[in-house]
Amino acid sequence: MRLPSRRALWLLAIAVLAVSWLLLANRPSFEPGLRADIDPTPFQDARRDAIPAEQVIRRSPGNATGTDRPPNVVVILADDLGYGDLGSYGARAIRTPNLDRLAAEGVRFIDFYASASVCSPSRAGLLTGRYPVRTGVSYVIFASEISLGHRFDLALTRLGSKLGTSRFHDSYVRGLPDSELTLAEALKVAGYATGHVGKWHLGDFSHDPRFLPIRHGFDFFEGIPHSNDEFPVAVWRDDQELTPNVGLAQEQMTADFTRAAVGFIDRNRDRPFFLYVGHKDVHVPLYPSERFRGRSAAGPYGDAVEELDWSVGEVLRALEERGLRDDTLVIFTSDNGAWYQGSTQGLRGRKGMPWEGGQRVPFIASWPGRLPAGATVGVPAMNIDLFPTVLRLAGLELPDDRVIDGRDLWGVMSGEQPAPPHEALLFFDDKVIDGVRSGQWKYYRYVDRYYWPVPLDKPNSLAGQRLEEYKYADERTGRELRLYADHPMLYDVALDPGEAYNLAARQPDVSARMLGYIERWEQDWLKNPRGWK
Amino acid sequence: MRLPSRRALWLLAIAVLAVSWLLLANRPSFEPGLRADIDPTPFQDARRDAIPAEQVIRRSPGNATGTDRPPNVVVILADDLGYGDLGSYGARAIRTPNLDRLAAEGVRFIDFYASASVCSPSRAGLLTGRYPVRTGVSYVIFASEISLGHRFDLALTRLGSKLGTSRFHDSYVRGLPDSELTLAEALKVAGYATGHVGKWHLGDFSHDPRFLPIRHGFDFFEGIPHSNDEFPVAVWRDDQELTPNVGLAQEQMTADFTRAAVGFIDRNRDRPFFLYVGHKDVHVPLYPSERFRGRSAAGPYGDAVEELDWSVGEVLRALEERGLRDDTLVIFTSDNGAWYQGSTQGLRGRKGMPWEGGQRVPFIASWPGRLPAGATVGVPAMNIDLFPTVLRLAGLELPDDRVIDGRDLWGVMSGEQPAPPHEALLFFDDKVIDGVRSGQWKYYRYVDRYYWPVPLDKPNSLAGQRLEEYKYADERTGRELRLYADHPMLYDVALDPGEAYNLAARQPDVSARMLGYIERWEQDWLKNPRGWK
Repeated sequence: MRLPSRRALWLLAIAVLAVSWLLLANRPSFEPGLRADIDPTPFQDARRDAIPAEQVIRRSPGNATGTDRPPNVVVILADDLGYGDLGSYGARAIRTPNLDRLAAEGVRFIDFYASASVCSPSRAGLLTGRYPVRTGVSYVIFASEISLGHRFDLALTRLGSKLGTSRFHDSYVRGLPDSELTLAEALKVAGYATGHVGKWHLGDFSHDPRFLPIRHGFDFFEGIPHSNDEFPVAVWRDDQELTPNVGLAQEQMTADFTRAAVGFIDRNRDRPFFLYVGHKDVHVPLYPSERFRGRSAAGPYGDAVEELDWSVGEVLRALEERGLRDDTLVIFTSDNGAWYQGSTQGLRGRKGMPWEGGQRVPFIASWPGRLPAGATVGVPAMNIDLFPTVLRLAGLELPDDRVIDGRDLWGVMSGEQPAPPHEALLFFDDKVIDGVRSGQWKYYRYVDRYYWPVPLDKPNSLAGQRLEEYKYADERTGRELRLYADHPMLYDVALDPGEAYNLAARQPDVSARMLGYIERWEQDWLKNPRGWK
Repeated sequence: MRLPSRRALWLLAIAVLAVSWLLLANRPSFEPGLRADIDPTPFQDARRDAIPAEQVIRRSPGNATGTDRPPNVVVILADDLGYGDLGSYGARAIRTPNLDRLAAEGVRFIDFYASASVCSPSRAGLLTGRYPVRTGVSYVIFASEISLGHRFDLALTRLGSKLGTSRFHDSYVRGLPDSELTLAEALKVAGYATGHVGKWHLGDFSHDPRFLPIRHGFDFFEGIPHSNDEFPVAVWRDDQELTPNVGLAQEQMTADFTRAAVGFIDRNRDRPFFLYVGHKDVHVPLYPSERFRGRSAAGPYGDAVEELDWSVGEVLRALEERGLRDDTLVIFTSDNGAWYQGSTQGLRGRKGMPWEGGQRVPFIASWPGRLPAGATVGVPAMNIDLFPTVLRLAGLELPDDRVIDGRDLWGVMSGEQPAPPHEALLFFDDKVIDGVRSGQWKYYRYVDRYYWPVPLDKPNSLAGQRLEEYKYADERTGRELRLYADHPMLYDVALDPGEAYNLAARQPDVSARMLGYIERWEQDWLKNPRGWK
């Protein structure tokens, strides 16, 4: 009788320990540096956190634009909008007259990329001018309130990651570190009023006020902390919660954001301003307002795009009515490619993948009288380029204490100096560089998030491998693997935008050069993850 | 001291039992009816197996084509060739002059589907004129020699399937049942010589001679039992093994198949013949011969397509040189959409998915003087239609003992009666109907093999569900799920071939009609899986 009882006690003790470990090991943490495989110290560098923007960003001696005052800058960011969802990018089932007009009056980039294939890192790249991995925000930042079931899932996935059976994607940090300088913080050095309306997604400030937009350079904020599919969906203004949870009652959200944006323009009409509108459209769930429901030929998704287009029209009208349009650079883009719905215009892959369909997005820049009207730019560029471009227009030097990966796009935008600003643009999956674009070439060492539901083991480097080689030994385990997906992959995206035909074996010199871009950047980065100077 | 010893014995016993079960439960079985969720009895119906084709197929009283003799029929099937990989279907980086000429001299279908998104069932559909699920070959038939590691994987996956955490795809059967009538068996009733060259993939006859092509109506066979990435890759002629394993030395295979095809034509020039060429191109691994290596602008994949095109040219030349071209209907198509490489021409999804990119394939039919030259057909059709179309041309009635799901395409091919032969075409994932095409509409109840590496739980029916509804309770488990992918999905593939915009909520009447097609077919099928009359 004693034996079963002792055994039961043992089992109980093990179960209690296991559950405790699962829950303790995966409790939400707001400290940076959750991962051990890269030294987390740089993200906790308190000295850096104390440096204000004025100390590292100087005003330029000259006046870059020749205007009396620096331009207002309005950046409108769509969420999960595909490359082919706007009329000016080939959409047939959706009408976007306001964005089409913006394109007709400005410059349309056709080889423009988000700096990540998912929300948070793409925003980190856009606001800091640096590859997201430098900021610690390398993957989606999920809402902080996670359920017991979610924690359990997380624990299992992390365990799988440790055992090598799956890969766990997680940011280093729970929000944008204070040590990062946002475009808003920089522009305040030049006297800009700064406002953010809409979706933030750079830290759940409901649980940690360090991640509030007003702690990152924005004078004004009205919006939501994270994606509209994570609950509670709280609406905040500055550092105050207005509504604890709108839940699925999201029909008025786009109109509310629009009103807040127009209000900000109105209040700041007499000084240079920077307005960053982060729409929840067209992230799921899709809740177009009643006025737009049923309007498009593309279902609720198309309706949401048309409402987004309406919102852009309202912002443009507000600028025009206040006589500000000629003093304002308006930029429109998307945070990543189309997700479940939305058109990639035939590009391969979708949100969450480094393929063209996951990161190539619309990009329109318009500044009447300063930028050409109706121009198309085929030069590869990325949203990290906004930071240096806008700083130049605001008469600011780049910060002298850190690497800025983005490049000034003014030359290609204006047509004054249309040379490609980048020799190579990198494509990350979380903390790993999967691919690189240079000229007409797109190269992938490997693509982890393939379309096929079979895990692909990831060798460290297969650059020298013959493409025809079909089986190879995994470098880590020595296990023989079948390599269905050719690695590496090289596509001529000018000839083959659908990334259908792997030319890596055919063009070994190009492949080697492309791999070189990745490996050199990676080596530098591992030495100095944050890119401090 | 006794306690640990007893415990160790227990553990050992459990381990031995577990491993034994794993190996025994998953040993290769050549008996039909491996799955328990559908009654396997029909696939083991010995009485049916005994019925020869002559007893159920009669010659037609009239002469359908008005020709002196029935035409020769040559069906050339590519493997994993994408919708956009031929010049006549928009390829820019690959030259396919012979197939382009075939299209220019014949009829090109632009809305043609394979009957499955993977190899084996697509071939079962093509050869029997029935939806593959009726034949038991509903998923890929893998080679019979499977390793210990593979058996272990299978066991875990099956366990997962039983626990509801994953879905196990497996055919009911290990090969095409004798009770199925192939196109070859049918044409022999009309006195045809029949030959199959190339990849069979309807049962690994290396281990079970019941699955030999010569046991399924082909007088002549030269080729390989399964895909060229499953080893050993043995080459057979009739019922003899010529080479036990060519391994990766596959460079000469396409030329060998071509020679065998031309030889068959040569030997049978004086009587009606049916030649079915199943190319290994362009399934991985890609081994174009030295002559073609480096020829295309699309890498090894493009080279393999160009070699395939060369092979088609050789077959056409053989027909022309022997004066048989005007007596021969030549058909070219692919078994499913593009896999890792290959162009979907912007269609969504790839091999293994019911999306357009997984099943829409090129289809060219050419019969000089009998079919119009250079015509394009936009009517939806499927490879199950070949069986009734060819039987009609051979002066045969359809078998009277079974349902044939395919429809006679002669009317739309010839332009004589261009009405759509199908009210609805069904799209299966293994044994489950995922979708249906009718007119311009494509509808999915759900898509299990989505692009996103997150398992999507599958509700039984969500037809009445509001699209905007975001969370729902799983009908089986009662668990609340997040529904990222809208279900059901309805696409207007004429306006939106990329399947980007879900119109299910917008068009409830169309959705209900589409679901009706699925549910009615499913109900009938569950009552009579084999479709016996």
